[in-house]
Amino acid sequence: MADATTAPPPAAHEVLAAVLQVRAGSLQVLLWERALEPHAHRWSLPGGRLGAAEDVEASIRRQLAEKVDVRQLSHVEQLAVFSAPTRVPGERVVATAFLGLVPSDVDPGLPDDTRWHPVDDLPSTAFDHESIVRRARHRLRSKLSYTNIGFALAPPEFTISALRGLYSAALGYTVSATNLQRVLARRGLLEPTGETAPSGRAGGRPAALFRFVERSMAVTDPFAVLRPPNQARGGAPS
Amino acid sequence: MADATTAPPPAAHEVLAAVLQVRAGSLQVLLWERALEPHAHRWSLPGGRLGAAEDVEASIRRQLAEKVDVRQLSHVEQLAVFSAPTRVPGERVVATAFLGLVPSDVDPGLPDDTRWHPVDDLPSTAFDHESIVRRARHRLRSKLSYTNIGFALAPPEFTISALRGLYSAALGYTVSATNLQRVLARRGLLEPTGETAPSGRAGGRPAALFRFVERSMAVTDPFAVLRPPNQARGGAPS
Repeated sequence: MADATTAPPPAAHEVLAAVLQVRAGSLQVLLWERALEPHAHRWSLPGGRLGAAEDVEASIRRQLAEKVDVRQLSHVEQLAVFSAPTRVPGERVVATAFLGLVPSDVDPGLPDDTRWHPVDDLPSTAFDHESIVRRARHRLRSKLSYTNIGFALAPPEFTISALRGLYSAALGYTVSATNLQRVLARRGLLEPTGETAPSGRAGGRPAALFRFVERSMAVTDPFAVLRPPNQARGGAPS
Repeated sequence: MADATTAPPPAAHEVLAAVLQVRAGSLQVLLWERALEPHAHRWSLPGGRLGAAEDVEASIRRQLAEKVDVRQLSHVEQLAVFSAPTRVPGERVVATAFLGLVPSDVDPGLPDDTRWHPVDDLPSTAFDHESIVRRARHRLRSKLSYTNIGFALAPPEFTISALRGLYSAALGYTVSATNLQRVLARRGLLEPTGETAPSGRAGGRPAALFRFVERSMAVTDPFAVLRPPNQARGGAPS
């Protein structure tokens, strides 16, 4: 086998992020409008070239800070490498794409060229960015089923009704509040805060407030009976 | 924000694979011994530079074909990008790492420089390859809990006792055959073939043979009650 440190083909490296948030009842993605060719006036994911002194995670966090206060990102993870030889015109560029999440109670100030767009109603997008957005949505939907990633969409405290709205928007179909609460409770993901939300306009009984027990990612339903006896519930997915 | 298609920093791209198989009761990884500097005589993951006309998936499959017949790989997936600026000496190289799996009934012919090594007892490894192996093991263990990935470790047909041996080796602790069968049956992953295995040396009742219902990856326990009514069980994880 050829030695891996000889004969590099030319390929630059960029990092891109599909930053998702549930806004106004729909799952939305942060895009900026390109001013210059190629693909002028099309909408791009935030990101840019990998810097000489940083790894891909440091690079995407640095570059997202130009668009969104990084303290407002509740979760960032590697999504996939996008590397089709002609994915951008001209010189080859390999992209490491990330999924980023912003909780629903935050409304980051945005630069003039940047807007939220519903994932189901995207404007004209640049390069392969639409397929990156679709991959991010698919990853989020998958992880809603086997991890506690809902914490990253939700505010610190919420009613079950509000959480159901977030899950429904992210999953793309209406979820039953009763079933959602049952599933999350069975997995030990939620705990009551002991407080209630102010009554809505319709009055009625005040709704109990909940929070996620953990606010970092864990697989929530590993084969319970297969785990060694002294291992804590759940574990970080990779 | 700077346009993503200007000012590339120099970074070559390589693909690497941690190919895992349960062999002789332990989880093992395929490594080749480097003949040349840097890191001569240390053990490396198979892979090499991304070619000009291929994406990362095509590249790793092409390069693995030099080490293992690709028809013997039951599963390949992207693991993560490894991109620390100094991960290899000299010119910067960004790596896309893959997890590959070989079923336990296959014994690929290997080149002279290549051997299987127990993941828990690695020889001196090159660069950051040990951390890639650890990441691959962690991914496999996680996916054993929430997907049907066991199909990729197992032969087409197996006894529960044999499957238990594969899960125990991959997970790193002894699994109860009774519990394993119950969990996999509850999730609808296994079906009996209707045949039995030949009796072992000790005689006794012949053991029933099973197979995985699906032999491609699916999440096996999505929030069942949250899914829309017409959606099939499970779904491809991303």
